[in-house]
Amino acid sequence: MRDFSRDISPLALNTATLGHNLDGYGAGWPVERVIDACAERGLGGIVFWRREIGARAVEIGERVRAAGMEVVGLCRTPYLVGPGAPGTLDEARASVDMAAGLGTRVLTIVTGGTEPGTKGVEESQKILAGRVAKLAAYAAERDVALALEPLNPMFGGNRTCLMTVRDALSVCERAGAPNVGVAVDVYHVWWDTGLAESLREAGNRILGYHLCDWREDTRDMLLDRGMMGDGVADLKAIRRAVEAAGYAGPCEVEIFSSRDWWQRDPNEVLDVMVERFRTVC
Amino acid sequence: MRDFSRDISPLALNTATLGHNLDGYGAGWPVERVIDACAERGLGGIVFWRREIGARAVEIGERVRAAGMEVVGLCRTPYLVGPGAPGTLDEARASVDMAAGLGTRVLTIVTGGTEPGTKGVEESQKILAGRVAKLAAYAAERDVALALEPLNPMFGGNRTCLMTVRDALSVCERAGAPNVGVAVDVYHVWWDTGLAESLREAGNRILGYHLCDWREDTRDMLLDRGMMGDGVADLKAIRRAVEAAGYAGPCEVEIFSSRDWWQRDPNEVLDVMVERFRTVC
Repeated sequence: MRDFSRDISPLALNTATLGHNLDGYGAGWPVERVIDACAERGLGGIVFWRREIGARAVEIGERVRAAGMEVVGLCRTPYLVGPGAPGTLDEARASVDMAAGLGTRVLTIVTGGTEPGTKGVEESQKILAGRVAKLAAYAAERDVALALEPLNPMFGGNRTCLMTVRDALSVCERAGAPNVGVAVDVYHVWWDTGLAESLREAGNRILGYHLCDWREDTRDMLLDRGMMGDGVADLKAIRRAVEAAGYAGPCEVEIFSSRDWWQRDPNEVLDVMVERFRTVC
Repeated sequence: MRDFSRDISPLALNTATLGHNLDGYGAGWPVERVIDACAERGLGGIVFWRREIGARAVEIGERVRAAGMEVVGLCRTPYLVGPGAPGTLDEARASVDMAAGLGTRVLTIVTGGTEPGTKGVEESQKILAGRVAKLAAYAAERDVALALEPLNPMFGGNRTCLMTVRDALSVCERAGAPNVGVAVDVYHVWWDTGLAESLREAGNRILGYHLCDWREDTRDMLLDRGMMGDGVADLKAIRRAVEAAGYAGPCEVEIFSSRDWWQRDPNEVLDVMVERFRTVC
């Protein structure tokens, strides 16, 4: 395993940790201030949300690289299946363009839930695979890879039809495109006793590793994630499995926390994040 | 598959469907009225919660049987592991005694979460297996079986260390007692693409099958379950897998619904439940 106590260059900030994924949350720092604060602390990269980027993808990507970091990823396409999915892939293609403009290789997909008129998840996974295959062809021309992110099963119905890394892999195989892989997020997978085996199968399909913690007493389904070390996820064991599968890329910290971390000064959040990354991840 | 359109004798009411599992919810019908309402509609059985029974286990069990039904199960032992577990098995043994008094063979176990001082779920599962083995010996002498109920992974941390039927089976095997099995609840397992395979392995370890539905847009982690047919769970496919594994026992309806079904007249709830059981389960 990599030694993060001495080297935090694999650490990336997902700006959701500062509340930047939703309107009305966080301290509202401009993108430039976020970039500077990450660079000052020695982070290796940043993951943005589309709402922060607008028409400034190229400019922001260059700014990140000028500060000595990488744009590690972009969150995320619109839903591709389920009740909230748009009828076409136009917006999904635009998000691929934005990722290409930023100069990042990884565009995350939260799939959307159970396709209207169907039950369960398997039919939706089949429909999803067809749409992912189409989007992957468009993305390949722009050197962008698509990272399917399985979500905790509590997000079934309206947000996801992929509940495990194994589910995501089966859609990867069905889509059959080399630039489709999996994003592994501690919040969503910490409970899965089959995780290590699924990760071994995933191998070089692992396109991202997301850190946070699962609080013992989760008070809100969406916005109550814990800082690493404050919960019950076995962070060392999960990273060991991720790295044993061959992953040596960035580790992005993504903490949705409306009651706690989003209430704090972003400088404090970043300092604690760096300290926890060095010591408990 | 059994044909429920003509025969509802496998149908059992879990009294949580009327809000009877929590203080301050539901219409507050006395146990006798619940028994009569179920018998009038032709149900085969009832599952009670400990709080309804008190010192009247034998009396209530006899009353149910006099009405032509069975006591299908009792909810539930206290947590056996995790932050909310009592330090001894005394209360768990008392719940076995209550099940025996009621004349039911099935006592459900919701395990409790991650044992303090540990991370993840696997260490807790090992500790759990030891405690289940002890309790199983006590239960066997009273002709009671213990049904380990895996919960949706959103209940990890403080409520469960078993997230899948496969997890529950691994604890069954480790506990090594013939009177330990699994309760399969649609709410907790509907999303699991490995479910059919796990159920085949479970075979005669399946001690119960619980019905409700997973609402597309779940508004509350604990108390927003759907009536069968109102959600996205593939109820027919799940029952097919449960019955293919050899299960031919009762199907209990267990709907925690503080905003909807617990607000309605229990007669309406029971009538809709019977209709949905006949048509969509």
